[in-house]
Amino acid sequence: MKNFHDEYNRTKDLFENKMLAMVGEAVYDAPEILTKAMRYSLEAGGKRVRPVLMLQVAQLFGTTLENVFPLAVALEFIHTYSLIHDDLPCMDNDELRRGKPTNHIVFGEDMALLAGDGLLNLAMETALKGAENLKEDDLKVYLQAMRILFTAAGVNGMIGGQGVDLLSENKDIDEETLHYIHTHKTGALINAAVLCGGILAKIDEKTYSILQHYSDVIGLAFQIRDDILDVQGDPEVVGKAIGSDLANKKTTYVTLYGLQESERKLKNLEEEGIRLMNQLDCDTSFLKTMIRYICQRDQ
Amino acid sequence: MKNFHDEYNRTKDLFENKMLAMVGEAVYDAPEILTKAMRYSLEAGGKRVRPVLMLQVAQLFGTTLENVFPLAVALEFIHTYSLIHDDLPCMDNDELRRGKPTNHIVFGEDMALLAGDGLLNLAMETALKGAENLKEDDLKVYLQAMRILFTAAGVNGMIGGQGVDLLSENKDIDEETLHYIHTHKTGALINAAVLCGGILAKIDEKTYSILQHYSDVIGLAFQIRDDILDVQGDPEVVGKAIGSDLANKKTTYVTLYGLQESERKLKNLEEEGIRLMNQLDCDTSFLKTMIRYICQRDQ
Repeated sequence: MKNFHDEYNRTKDLFENKMLAMVGEAVYDAPEILTKAMRYSLEAGGKRVRPVLMLQVAQLFGTTLENVFPLAVALEFIHTYSLIHDDLPCMDNDELRRGKPTNHIVFGEDMALLAGDGLLNLAMETALKGAENLKEDDLKVYLQAMRILFTAAGVNGMIGGQGVDLLSENKDIDEETLHYIHTHKTGALINAAVLCGGILAKIDEKTYSILQHYSDVIGLAFQIRDDILDVQGDPEVVGKAIGSDLANKKTTYVTLYGLQESERKLKNLEEEGIRLMNQLDCDTSFLKTMIRYICQRDQ
Repeated sequence: MKNFHDEYNRTKDLFENKMLAMVGEAVYDAPEILTKAMRYSLEAGGKRVRPVLMLQVAQLFGTTLENVFPLAVALEFIHTYSLIHDDLPCMDNDELRRGKPTNHIVFGEDMALLAGDGLLNLAMETALKGAENLKEDDLKVYLQAMRILFTAAGVNGMIGGQGVDLLSENKDIDEETLHYIHTHKTGALINAAVLCGGILAKIDEKTYSILQHYSDVIGLAFQIRDDILDVQGDPEVVGKAIGSDLANKKTTYVTLYGLQESERKLKNLEEEGIRLMNQLDCDTSFLKTMIRYICQRDQ
């Protein structure tokens, strides 16, 4: 395989250009300041882990990326809106995100709220546009992927996890509750990224269940690494304040199991992810390095 | 035609039962308080003008209502989320809606924000579920209606209108700006209600353009009546404080043209709507009485 980071950045750049072009096409009759607020958070950077995962999985199983972009872009719109709303004063009240002032600090709470609503709605518009001109079989497959994406984003998925997370602040929560938060708040969209990529490539059931397992592993690993970075990350690199979980008295993997146990768990997940990818008879080197990257990232 | 109000209430009751049943099916893994918050605003009543319009138009042109319910329910989810977010302290900061405490007064700002996000996402999930098991031709028509609905709900529609409305507070705005706010903030979803009903019934182009005109008329009439009710409505009946537009120094039809001119405009729209319905060679008596009802409603 080409160097992982080259391939990652190639996919990321391809995606970002496509995403910003799609925003340009999709927004034609909105107030300028609202458009600016949406673009501000979309252009604030970020790792684009979810769309890169979706595009790489789809590519691995032989889909042309053109068919995947609309859902990959919709996914990033959903992720971005959730960050804008999470940062609002009535939620986590964060003033810094990816090293930049959060949306409501720049545009005000009211515009930030609308920018978030606008991005979630734009996710649906963009996904629907991708369904245009698809022939019956491809259309059925595409709609199946759309259902997986928007179910993962909803109250039975990401929003539900956000809700339980809010209800758990300043409380000691048990393992089961933390598991719900992790699998829903972060895990659901990462699962959807991997599974939508596979579904659009029309993979068989055996491959699907391996990818499902892989996406659970990578989703949990992503969250545990997040929890570790919150206690030992470099604020300059992470791009936000460190220790905010502690400050908000949040139960995390680290507060529940301690740093050493969390790192051991992370190592196991890394091995598990690689073991799963070895079960597929195609070149999964990117997805193997991906789980390693997720487990070792410093931002 | 049967008595208008009997027919209206029959459709409304049918719709509300279907909507609450669909929420029950769609929400299965969300925190209880979040589900309660969403249900609270869905069950807070309201006229259900939009779904009733969609269902009646679809019925008029011969569609079985079963095929229309998913989009009608999605539309009411969208309308309801927009009210929850509009009422938030960072927006209109309203404490009373339909005679009841607003969502954030009962459940807190953070849950109200998530309940709104959850309802918008649920609108997409519900609309997508309605696309399951449709054969190719019906599916293409259904997706066309979905695109109209979610475009109307987005930043080029309702959310854009909300944005311009916010930017216009405490400002004297011109006719063009007020027109943008009216056609986008309120008009867009009412247009979508009428047009989706027609599209699902596979109407011809001539009928479509008449319905499009009718939906513009009814949307504008709805907003002008709202502006009039804000200055001369009975708070007990309207279910919210009167004079809030004046208090927020909002430019409305009444502040721009005066009460008398607004009422004259409303009368013209009523006649225009009836004239348009007379161009259709089917029994449009419900839609004729509907425009009269919109223009004369006291809540």
